Amino acid sequence: MGKRRDRADRRPGAGEAPRETRDRSGGQGASPPAAGLSGPAGRPSRGSAKTIGDVPMGAGDDTGNAGIVATRYATVAEPPNELRLESGERLGPITIAYETYGTLSERRDNAILVLHALSGDAHVAGRHAPDDKRPGWWDMMIGPGKALDTDRYFVIGTNVIGGCSGSTGPSSTDPKTGRPYGTGFPIITVADMVEAQALLLDRLGIERLLAVVGGSMGGMQALEWAVAKPERVHQVIALATAARQPTQAIAFNEVGRQAIMADPDWNDGDYYGRGVPAKGLAVARMIGHITYLSDEAMHEKFGRRLQDIHDYSFTFSADFQVESYLRYQGLSFTERFDANTYLYITRALDYFDLTRDRRSLVDVFRDVTSRFLVMAFSSDWLHPPYQLKEIVGALRATHKHVSYYEVQSGFGHDAFLLEREKMEGVIGAFLASGARTYHFAPAGPRGATPSVPAPSSED
Amino acid sequence: MGKRRDRADRRPGAGEAPRETRDRSGGQGASPPAAGLSGPAGRPSRGSAKTIGDVPMGAGDDTGNAGIVATRYATVAEPPNELRLESGERLGPITIAYETYGTLSERRDNAILVLHALSGDAHVAGRHAPDDKRPGWWDMMIGPGKALDTDRYFVIGTNVIGGCSGSTGPSSTDPKTGRPYGTGFPIITVADMVEAQALLLDRLGIERLLAVVGGSMGGMQALEWAVAKPERVHQVIALATAARQPTQAIAFNEVGRQAIMADPDWNDGDYYGRGVPAKGLAVARMIGHITYLSDEAMHEKFGRRLQDIHDYSFTFSADFQVESYLRYQGLSFTERFDANTYLYITRALDYFDLTRDRRSLVDVFRDVTSRFLVMAFSSDWLHPPYQLKEIVGALRATHKHVSYYEVQSGFGHDAFLLEREKMEGVIGAFLASGARTYHFAPAGPRGATPSVPAPSSED
Repeated sequence: MGKRRDRADRRPGAGEAPRETRDRSGGQGASPPAAGLSGPAGRPSRGSAKTIGDVPMGAGDDTGNAGIVATRYATVAEPPNELRLESGERLGPITIAYETYGTLSERRDNAILVLHALSGDAHVAGRHAPDDKRPGWWDMMIGPGKALDTDRYFVIGTNVIGGCSGSTGPSSTDPKTGRPYGTGFPIITVADMVEAQALLLDRLGIERLLAVVGGSMGGMQALEWAVAKPERVHQVIALATAARQPTQAIAFNEVGRQAIMADPDWNDGDYYGRGVPAKGLAVARMIGHITYLSDEAMHEKFGRRLQDIHDYSFTFSADFQVESYLRYQGLSFTERFDANTYLYITRALDYFDLTRDRRSLVDVFRDVTSRFLVMAFSSDWLHPPYQLKEIVGALRATHKHVSYYEVQSGFGHDAFLLEREKMEGVIGAFLASGARTYHFAPAGPRGATPSVPAPSSED
Repeated sequence: MGKRRDRADRRPGAGEAPRETRDRSGGQGASPPAAGLSGPAGRPSRGSAKTIGDVPMGAGDDTGNAGIVATRYATVAEPPNELRLESGERLGPITIAYETYGTLSERRDNAILVLHALSGDAHVAGRHAPDDKRPGWWDMMIGPGKALDTDRYFVIGTNVIGGCSGSTGPSSTDPKTGRPYGTGFPIITVADMVEAQALLLDRLGIERLLAVVGGSMGGMQALEWAVAKPERVHQVIALATAARQPTQAIAFNEVGRQAIMADPDWNDGDYYGRGVPAKGLAVARMIGHITYLSDEAMHEKFGRRLQDIHDYSFTFSADFQVESYLRYQGLSFTERFDANTYLYITRALDYFDLTRDRRSLVDVFRDVTSRFLVMAFSSDWLHPPYQLKEIVGALRATHKHVSYYEVQSGFGHDAFLLEREKMEGVIGAFLASGARTYHFAPAGPRGATPSVPAPSSED
């Protein structure tokens, strides 16, 4: 991958002041924006361009746009302080790609970490260049005046380790060999992703988050944050997710992996600089894509409509619009995503189980101190509402503060990326109420019992 | 495939007397049973071994077993009387593999045609040899005293055209080239399957069926029978199916086809006598298999249990039982099923739409004369109950006799192959009541209006 890394001579500790990071384009081929580090560019800024340490503070513009952002890179876990992974293996140095939006407050009490799903990245909002066709993947929720209001909050997006959008993953260069890791990359878990994110926060000087927010795999990371690092998370927003990867989702992921590994171009993961296993990865993506849409959404979007023909071709061509759409989705995915990362990230998903090595979900949540907003989507069949309700039930059983909200939506699992109007009020109000209680909430060491009674749950 | 064919010098007409057919093992490697054509062997028969013409009549034994059966082959549509397909192409000669159970009555009024789903075959019940480990695919419903009681009914199983279990399909030898058809085989539709079955019935001398019965694609064939040949079908039992292939099912099939065609061993369909595209076909089957099981069934059957290990391997091995199961299902499927047939049959499924070229489902059913039993399964998400209810609603709108029954089952789509106890009473009673009305029901030409008022629907 050849990312520039800012070397540090030791593993940073919690609460350490931000260290230098360097600006990079997000691997999209765009030039670094002229405005550099100090804030959004390309539109009139309504916040002044300031930094705390090297942390840029931009505020976007009056139209709700998060503005022009740049992906940045931090290097953590440098030898001999490599990150010890759940598998027992050690990984380091680790590059972490991240983006920030808004201004970190003087008290550093307004930081929100946004966590991505399988194929997401650090680019959660705004654009890398003024002529970018599409903004970041959760732009609908992040910007001035939006639910994650960058006039009030300091929003951080970050690519998970194992990823292929700037953070260290199987397509990165293994410093031991000088070649891409490939399948020599260690298996990583959701807990490992969170550990690496914690190192990034250390680097940014953020001891405690106002909130962690994520859907699907991002929701799993959010839950893991609450369980593994309760003292560092004031609020958790978990969308369209589960406390453990369900069987059916493991099954679909396994088929996707088999499709990739069946492609001769996969070559046991050693394909960098050669032909990529595009056909296998496309099939894997097509499978995944179906699971993200509801039966109803597929029917309404495509029905049995034909693509550019008036009658059946009586061939194996893509007669139906839904076939053409899936082929396009599969093909375009191979242009932006690494096949090995698909293997590693789906493995991390499948391994995710908060109750692993633990007695019950209620026990797992016993020492959690965060306030929770758990959101389900009615037509999501990858993570149906019952899976979210299980989380809510366990939190309530230990008298945690938890709000449950079920969005009526026909969009299926993808609803958390689409249903802006149905989500923004709930998320915005939850974040705002949490911001008011931030300095009254317990921030003790892991395992501390809340010093004030948790508020009663609300629905 | 090198099947022996019994040649006929003309295309048989409806009502023609049975012609000679020859006995073959069902491609399972078993020797032809010693008992030959004249009925079940290997257990004491409670029916006498008789034939009408060459139609064997066996009655199985006292334990409900359909006994030892042999797959048989008829050749129809011989040039110059090839079958004209829906695509406009012509196909012939056509070999049709079939099996029969029970005794055709003197009045030929007790024949039931059982229609298989994607991967089924003519072997619907009984065993090909005494030491066969598994009986035919619907053995639970077919045999002496069972719902399709072979002491009363003459049951016919038949492999669809396009198939790979004895009927003419892409793996058969193209008489024009002397080589397997491969992708030179014409695209076939559900309507074409039914036309070929009608030619088989002509050959067997069966003018009118007491019933057609099928689940999934078998249900589509059953509906097509009722619409295309109303004068030949007294009763229709359609299970876990739809009046048109739904969008999501097209999507899953398309991914399976892409997986097969992505396998370099597929070689544009020309792989016979070489390496078969096993990896691609296995992936296709794994996808299909997930759609046949419910989320709930998968969870109960496998959960997150590990396969022969105590902890995660932190590799891409099949750690989870569900992964191991799917890999096995995929692999074993490739040993019995032809990849090109998978392409052709899924294409036929996706093309199925009773309302194609017609105004509405109500209009489509207007000239139907059959009595209907439509059965849905509560956890079937490939063909959820709403798709069956659509059929029922359209039939009721034209005052047809239709019974709707929703089986409460956690098994998903596969429930129609598993829920014996919940199905047999309903199906048995429906068939028996239809047998009583058979000679009073209209049997006029296609499009005839019932001469007696249809009974009111029942639920």
